Amino acid sequence: MSMQVPAGDLLKTINYPSDLKRLNETELEQVCQELRQYIIDVVSVNGGHFAASLGVVELTVALQYVLNTPYDQLVWDVGHQAYGHKILTGRRDEFHTNRVYKGLSGFPKRSESEYDTFGVGHSSTSISVALGMAVASHYKGETDRQHVAVIGDGAMTAGMAFEALNHAGIENSNLLVILNDNNMSIDPNVGALKEYLTDITTSKPYNRFRDDIAHVLAKLSAIGPDAFKIAQKIEKSIKGTLLKRSNFFEALKFRYFGPIDGHDVNHLVKVLKDLRDIPGPKLLHCITTKGKGYALAEKDQTKWHAPGLFDKITGEIKKTKYDKPQPPKYQDVFGHSIIELAEQNPKIMGITPAMPSGCSLNLMMKAMPTRAFDVGIAEQHAVTFSAGLATQGLVPFCNIYSSFMQRAYDQVIHDVAIQNLNVIFCLDRAGLVGADGPTHHGAYDLAFMRCIPNMTVSAPMNEEELRNLMFTAQQENMGPFVIRYPRGNGVMVDWRRPFKAIPVGKGRKVCDGEEVAILSIGAIGNEVVKATAELNTEGYYPAHYDLRFVKPLDEALLHEVFKKFSKVITVEDGCLEGGMGSAILEFMADNGYQNTQVKRLGIPDKIVEHGEQPELWAECGYDAQHIIAQVRSLGAKHNAHTIAS
Amino acid sequence: MSMQVPAGDLLKTINYPSDLKRLNETELEQVCQELRQYIIDVVSVNGGHFAASLGVVELTVALQYVLNTPYDQLVWDVGHQAYGHKILTGRRDEFHTNRVYKGLSGFPKRSESEYDTFGVGHSSTSISVALGMAVASHYKGETDRQHVAVIGDGAMTAGMAFEALNHAGIENSNLLVILNDNNMSIDPNVGALKEYLTDITTSKPYNRFRDDIAHVLAKLSAIGPDAFKIAQKIEKSIKGTLLKRSNFFEALKFRYFGPIDGHDVNHLVKVLKDLRDIPGPKLLHCITTKGKGYALAEKDQTKWHAPGLFDKITGEIKKTKYDKPQPPKYQDVFGHSIIELAEQNPKIMGITPAMPSGCSLNLMMKAMPTRAFDVGIAEQHAVTFSAGLATQGLVPFCNIYSSFMQRAYDQVIHDVAIQNLNVIFCLDRAGLVGADGPTHHGAYDLAFMRCIPNMTVSAPMNEEELRNLMFTAQQENMGPFVIRYPRGNGVMVDWRRPFKAIPVGKGRKVCDGEEVAILSIGAIGNEVVKATAELNTEGYYPAHYDLRFVKPLDEALLHEVFKKFSKVITVEDGCLEGGMGSAILEFMADNGYQNTQVKRLGIPDKIVEHGEQPELWAECGYDAQHIIAQVRSLGAKHNAHTIAS
Repeated sequence: MSMQVPAGDLLKTINYPSDLKRLNETELEQVCQELRQYIIDVVSVNGGHFAASLGVVELTVALQYVLNTPYDQLVWDVGHQAYGHKILTGRRDEFHTNRVYKGLSGFPKRSESEYDTFGVGHSSTSISVALGMAVASHYKGETDRQHVAVIGDGAMTAGMAFEALNHAGIENSNLLVILNDNNMSIDPNVGALKEYLTDITTSKPYNRFRDDIAHVLAKLSAIGPDAFKIAQKIEKSIKGTLLKRSNFFEALKFRYFGPIDGHDVNHLVKVLKDLRDIPGPKLLHCITTKGKGYALAEKDQTKWHAPGLFDKITGEIKKTKYDKPQPPKYQDVFGHSIIELAEQNPKIMGITPAMPSGCSLNLMMKAMPTRAFDVGIAEQHAVTFSAGLATQGLVPFCNIYSSFMQRAYDQVIHDVAIQNLNVIFCLDRAGLVGADGPTHHGAYDLAFMRCIPNMTVSAPMNEEELRNLMFTAQQENMGPFVIRYPRGNGVMVDWRRPFKAIPVGKGRKVCDGEEVAILSIGAIGNEVVKATAELNTEGYYPAHYDLRFVKPLDEALLHEVFKKFSKVITVEDGCLEGGMGSAILEFMADNGYQNTQVKRLGIPDKIVEHGEQPELWAECGYDAQHIIAQVRSLGAKHNAHTIAS
Repeated sequence: MSMQVPAGDLLKTINYPSDLKRLNETELEQVCQELRQYIIDVVSVNGGHFAASLGVVELTVALQYVLNTPYDQLVWDVGHQAYGHKILTGRRDEFHTNRVYKGLSGFPKRSESEYDTFGVGHSSTSISVALGMAVASHYKGETDRQHVAVIGDGAMTAGMAFEALNHAGIENSNLLVILNDNNMSIDPNVGALKEYLTDITTSKPYNRFRDDIAHVLAKLSAIGPDAFKIAQKIEKSIKGTLLKRSNFFEALKFRYFGPIDGHDVNHLVKVLKDLRDIPGPKLLHCITTKGKGYALAEKDQTKWHAPGLFDKITGEIKKTKYDKPQPPKYQDVFGHSIIELAEQNPKIMGITPAMPSGCSLNLMMKAMPTRAFDVGIAEQHAVTFSAGLATQGLVPFCNIYSSFMQRAYDQVIHDVAIQNLNVIFCLDRAGLVGADGPTHHGAYDLAFMRCIPNMTVSAPMNEEELRNLMFTAQQENMGPFVIRYPRGNGVMVDWRRPFKAIPVGKGRKVCDGEEVAILSIGAIGNEVVKATAELNTEGYYPAHYDLRFVKPLDEALLHEVFKKFSKVITVEDGCLEGGMGSAILEFMADNGYQNTQVKRLGIPDKIVEHGEQPELWAECGYDAQHIIAQVRSLGAKHNAHTIAS
C-alpha cells in the first residue's frame, strides 16, 4: 500500500536531532535540501499534506539544531507542516506509512513520539499549550527549558490564539512564538491581521525603521544645542509613547522580532540562538513560502496543500481513470446547489471559516462575491456573524466541518438556537473522515446538536437528498437547521435533479421487509442498502428506513416500525452515546414500546484512529458486512414471496 | 414580589427614545442623573446586576439621543449593562419585574422589545452580530443605517471578539464598536490587552501625542534648512510607517478614536454625531467607571457587580437572617476544598476564565498566587492551557460555568480527551441557574460531555460528595474528569469532612424500596429525598439511587435495579435529549432489559426562561412534587414492613 523511497546521503545519517547537531553550516543547507526532496519523493507516491511541510524545512532543521528537544518543548500548530519534524525525530523510515491505517499519524501525536509534545489537528492551539508547558516549567524551577510554538498567520486569526497571546503577555514565562507567515491557510489567508502582516513585511521593516530614527536623531543632535534638545524630546516621546505600542504583538506585551527570511537556515540558527537568552514572551516573525522548493506548489498553494499522488517530475496529479462518469463529492453538491438556490432566493448568503476550497463555497464566492464570505479561521465568529445576518431576514448557509463545529458550540446554542434564528449549518466531513484521523472525525455532532431546543438535525443519504434538504432548510421560518454529510463521494451520477421540499421530520422507507427493521441516518444508509441486497440473496428480508431527521423524529414512521417489528437495528456514522440510536430508545421509552430488541451500530466509545473510511467503518462494526452479520444473528430467514411490499 | 418605585420628573416623561430627542444639553444631564437614581432605587429593592449599568448611563442616553433606534441597530455585549437601555425603550414601568419569573429578562432579548436587537448573556458576541447586521444593510442598500456594538474591555479579551475585529476590518461596513473600558470584568480585568489599554489611557493620549510631534517638528523646521529637511524626513517616516500601525485596533484596520470620558454626556453626543458620518469600521474608546455615581460600588466593583438587595442610603447589603448555620454555596465548597487538596498535592493548579469570585477560585488565587490563574474571558484558552499543564504532570482544576463550557467544547475533545489528559473540569452553575435565564442555564453538559471518549462525567448530590469527587479526580491517571454542580447552596451544614476516594463509576443507594426505583444524578437528588419522605407517609416506598456518575455508568448497580424493579424514574437537572436518562436507556438496550417501564424527568426540549430555581424545576416537572406525582401514578402502595432494607 505505502511505498518506501530512499533518503539522501546526509539525511540517511540523521536518525534523531542529536545527529543533526554535529553538522556545520554548509551541511545544514544540504540537510534542508535532502529533507525537502525526501518529502517530495514520499508524498508524491504516498499522498498527504504537502506544501505546508515544504515551507518549514529550514525552520524545522534550525529549531532541531538549536533546541535541546525533547527536553525543550516544540509545539507545531495544526501539524500539517510537521512532516520534516517527524522525519528528523526517529520516523524517517516509517514516514511512508504516513496517514495509512495503522501507520504514522498525519499530525504530531503524543503516543507516537516523545518529540511530539502535543497532539494537534485543529488550528490555533499551540500558544495555549506552549504557555501551559512554560508555566509548568516555571513552577517547577526548570529555568533553562525552552518552549516554542510554531503557528501560521492563518491560525493566528482564530480567537483562541489571541486569548493565549493575551494571557501569555502577562506571564513571565520562557515562551517563543514563531509566526510562520506564508500568507495562506489552506486557501489564501484573509482578514485585517493578514493585511497588517503584509504591511509590516512589504514596507520598511520595523526594526530598521527604529535604527533609521536613531540615526536621524543623531545627525540632528550634531546641528546645535537647540536641535539637540529637540532631538532628545522627540526621542523620548517616541520611545516612551509610540514605540512601546507600535506593533500589534508588542501591544500584547510580546517582544517582537523580525520579519526574517524563513528559508535562510543559517540565519535562522543564529536568531534562534540569540532568542534563547531573552526571557519572557517573544515572537519571531518568519516569512516563508508554502510549497517552497517545488515550483508548481509555490504557484498554486491551495491545489498543492494536499494534492494526492502526483508525478514529481511533471507535476501531473494522478487521477483514477474511470470508464464512466462518477458520483460527485458531497462538498461539490453543496457548492453547486447553494448557487442554484441563491439564484432563486436573494436572501441566501454563504459563510465559511477558512474552508472555501474544502467545502466548495469557493464556487459561490466566485459567482456571487457579495454574498459569500470566507471569514478566516474563526468558527465562533462565523456562526454569530451568520446569526446577525439572520436577524435581518437573510438566510445564511454556514458551512463548517463537523469537527470544527465543536469550536462554535456555544454560538450555536446561545446566538442561534435560543433565539430560534434561521441559520443553516451544513456540516461537511461528518462521521469518520478517514486519513485525517481522530482530530478530524465528525463523530459527535448528532449527539451534541440534537440536545439543543429549536434545532432541526438532518442528514441526507445521497446527493439528491442533500439538495432537497438544502432546499427545505432555506424556506421561511425554518429556525436553526443542521444538515450533516460525509467526506467523499456520493452515490448518484445523475444527481442534479429538480429541488423538492421535504416535510421536516419526515423519514422514508427504503425497502420493506419482515421481522428485522434497519433504521439508518445519512449516507451510511448506503452500506445498509448493500447489506440488504446481499441478505436478500440469503433469504433474509430486513426492512430499511432512512430517518433523514434525528430531530424531530418521524414519529409516525417509528410507530409503524415498532408496531410491526420486534427487532430493530440502528445504523449511524456517529457516536453511539447520545446519538440517533439513543434518540430512538428515548422514543420507545416515552411511547411504551418495551418488547422490541434494539441493536445500535455506530462509533463506539473510543478514540478511532486514522485509515480509509471503509476500514474504519469495519473496525467500528457498521459497514455492510457487520450489518449483515447483525441481521443474520437476529433475523429468521423468509421466502421472498412472504414479504408484503 | 417585585417592588415598583417612582421615577424622576424628567425620566417619567421618557417612554421611548423619541421623547429623549426633544431635550437640550442640560436636560440630558438631568436625565442621566434621574436614570442613575432610578436604577439605584429599583435594584436596591429588587436585586439584579448593578454596577455595570451605572457605568454606562451617559453612554446609553447619548446613543439613544443620537441614533435612530430601532432602525439603527444597537447591540449591547453581555447585557449586564443594559438596564438603562431597557428603561429608556418602553420598559421603565416594568423594570421592577427584572429577572423575576415571568417578568423582564435581565438581558436584552429579541422577543421582549424591537429595541433589543440581539439576545445576549455570554460575552463577546456583539461585534460579530453587529457586523452581520451591517453586512446585511450593505447588501440591501440601506446606506444610512447605523450599527453599533458596545463591548467592555473584559469582553474584548475573548477570542471571538478578536475574530470579529479581524473580519470587520476588511468589510467596508458601517460599523461602530464602542469599547466601554472600565478595567473590569466581574472581577478586575486581566491580560496584556488590559495593560495596553491602561497604557493608552494613563500615558499621554495618542491623538495629543500626534499633535505634539507636529508642533515639535514645526519648531525644528524653523531652525534652518538642514533641520527642515531632517524634520520632513522624520515626519514622513512617522506618518508613513509608524502611525498607521501604531495602535492595536488600527493594526486591525479599524479607525481608532479616543480615549474619551464616557461620563460626559454632551461630549459623547458630539462625538457620536461626528462618527455617524465616517464610513467603514471604527472604534471609539470610552473610559467609564463601573458603579459610577454610587460611591461604594465605585470602590468595590466586584462586590457591587450584582450585590443582591441593599439599603441604598447606608450601602448595607441585606442578608437573610438565620437562627442557625446554613449550608454553604457549592462554589465555596469548591473554593475551600481545592486549597486543602493543593496543600496535600503540589501538582494541583487552579484555572478560571474570568470567574474568580463567581467560582470562588479567588480564595486559592489569594492563598497560592503562583498556582491559581485567572486567564481572562477566554474559555478556549483556559482549557488548552490546562491541557498544556497536564502534559507536564500537573493536575489542573479548570473551573468553568456549565453554559460557558460550551465555549470550549472543541478544546475539551481535541486537546484533552483525545490525548486522555488528566484535566479536571469543575462545571459550576450546572442545571437550571435561576434568574440569569436561558443564556446561562447549564442544561446540556451531561449530554455533550458523556458522548466524549475517555471522559468521566460525575455530579455530586451534596457538599461531601463534591469534596470526595474532587479528591478522586486529582488522583494519578484519572484522565479527563467532569464534576458538575449547581448554582446556590448545598444541603449540609457540617460539610468539611475528611476526603474519601470514590471508585470511579460507583453510584450509591440512598434508600431501598419496592416496585419503583428512582435514579438521580447530582444535587437534584435532594428533591428525590424530599419526595420519598413524603411518599413514605402515603405508603409508597420507592427506592432511590444516586448514580454519581453518568459516565462510566455503575453497571453493577444498574443490573441490580433492573433485575429488581419493573418501574424506573430517572431524575436529572439537565436536558432529557441525550442526558442521564438516555444513558440508562442505552444500558437497558445493550443488556436486554426490555420489561422495565422508564419515565425520564429532566429539562424538556424547550428554551426554559428565567425564574427562581424551584419555580423552574416545577415548570419542567422534576421538583419533589412532580416526582411524587410520578411515583403515585406508577407505583402500588405498600406497607412499610414489606420493604427489605
